[in-house]
Amino acid sequence: MIERIAILGTGLLGTSAGLALRAAGFPGHITGWNRSPEGAQTALDLGALDSVSQDALQMARESQLVLLATPVFSILDWMEKLAPVLGPAHLVTDVGSTKAQITAAGSRLYNEPGKASFLPGHPMAGKERGGASLGEATLFRGTVWLFTDVDSESRTPQGTSLVADWRRWVTALGAKTLDLDPVRHDELVAWVSHLPQFVATALSALLEEEVGEAPELKDVGGRGLREMTRLGASPFSMWRDIAYTNTEPVQAALLKLEQRLAHLRENLRTAGLREEFDKANRFRRE
Amino acid sequence: MIERIAILGTGLLGTSAGLALRAAGFPGHITGWNRSPEGAQTALDLGALDSVSQDALQMARESQLVLLATPVFSILDWMEKLAPVLGPAHLVTDVGSTKAQITAAGSRLYNEPGKASFLPGHPMAGKERGGASLGEATLFRGTVWLFTDVDSESRTPQGTSLVADWRRWVTALGAKTLDLDPVRHDELVAWVSHLPQFVATALSALLEEEVGEAPELKDVGGRGLREMTRLGASPFSMWRDIAYTNTEPVQAALLKLEQRLAHLRENLRTAGLREEFDKANRFRRE
Repeated sequence: MIERIAILGTGLLGTSAGLALRAAGFPGHITGWNRSPEGAQTALDLGALDSVSQDALQMARESQLVLLATPVFSILDWMEKLAPVLGPAHLVTDVGSTKAQITAAGSRLYNEPGKASFLPGHPMAGKERGGASLGEATLFRGTVWLFTDVDSESRTPQGTSLVADWRRWVTALGAKTLDLDPVRHDELVAWVSHLPQFVATALSALLEEEVGEAPELKDVGGRGLREMTRLGASPFSMWRDIAYTNTEPVQAALLKLEQRLAHLRENLRTAGLREEFDKANRFRRE
Repeated sequence: MIERIAILGTGLLGTSAGLALRAAGFPGHITGWNRSPEGAQTALDLGALDSVSQDALQMARESQLVLLATPVFSILDWMEKLAPVLGPAHLVTDVGSTKAQITAAGSRLYNEPGKASFLPGHPMAGKERGGASLGEATLFRGTVWLFTDVDSESRTPQGTSLVADWRRWVTALGAKTLDLDPVRHDELVAWVSHLPQFVATALSALLEEEVGEAPELKDVGGRGLREMTRLGASPFSMWRDIAYTNTEPVQAALLKLEQRLAHLRENLRTAGLREEFDKANRFRRE
């Protein structure tokens, strides 16, 4: 069973995972590494880690589970670096927002006899601002933690056992797990996560140009405006990787929304508007 | 000073106004009329009203302040019906979401010697679902209540005094008042209120088609998706009038957002994406 966990990247998700594991009673050792030492120190100060490591590869070797909690391209980099130095007693898993490329890399580099195991994961949790200092033990409670594992049949018994143990811990953090095909995952999150983000970004950027100079006018919008632009604060550093690794599904979703907005614009005074409201009401039926 | 208030339309806003006036210590009588008697009864049961009237015109005549709290076209209808039966001792005000047409009707029908006064108002408060049963005494707390008065110079001393008293009550409900030109008002709310609503409607309607059949997939989206589609539940009955009476500003805002989304779609892998995130981040700077 998992007794030593290494968190590679102690931003919002990595720090929250450490805090949540502690709150769920994880009895083992949690160590962490972060590109900026300040982020790791903050995670340590908050109690998300038992120790901070200066050497990510050594930290990974000394653990049974390595949680990659960085943006997608950095996850892909670490997967390449870790594969040659880890072995069958190690499970690497991640929290990356897109899964097709990561899952393919996992099959290529891991999940074979003599190699470490890899389990592609994606907790649907986050905030519009990142960083260790915003970490919360309850971040994953009531959320869905997606997995896009395609190697369960070929995995070694040791890897299978580590995977089962990590899935139990994810459930203990308060998340519901759901298994999806990786390509289907990326198409789905393009609709329910990436499209809402990019709409909030475009809306916020547009409003910055139109009313940004007059802060008192932002207050006029009230709760609806605040909610529709909250994600406008999201960091480019994370979303650049998502845009780059899920380009086609996101483009398809954006194009459909553009067409939908044009249809609505052309039907503000026709019965077509009622149809749009009826359909939207159905999406939000309780 | 205002001692008798008549609320014409006891939906979410009318009922909340009654409850908020009571909570703020309004010592006079509050009576209400609603198209459906059930809505008026609910407002009475909640304590928003002291009495329910069967006759809106008589109720208005017997009050000093008439609060029109219906959708925009119905407000315009009531302004026409009330003007001939009210006199200088009456102030009519409203909570309508668009103000150019209502303010023009006010100048045409009211605010002259021998006539009742009219004060065009618009509290930036609401919920995605309507009805008396959702009324709350705190609905206006921390919000902005807009006025688009253009007749303050020509109004009679009696009318001016009633207007000043009602403005004091609005402040007592916890709202901050802000005065705007009516055409500027409609342009501004097209950006900060109507655009967010129509985006939420289009996004919700699109997602209903794409993932509506699989409720478990909605959960995957989490808080971001919930917030970005909450306004999808908004009632057509109210928004039809807004779309019809503010068509050009809303069309202009929608077209600009469509162009912005297309720009973002074409720049998912270029430095243009960073510029959009930077600008969106600025809108949400704290």
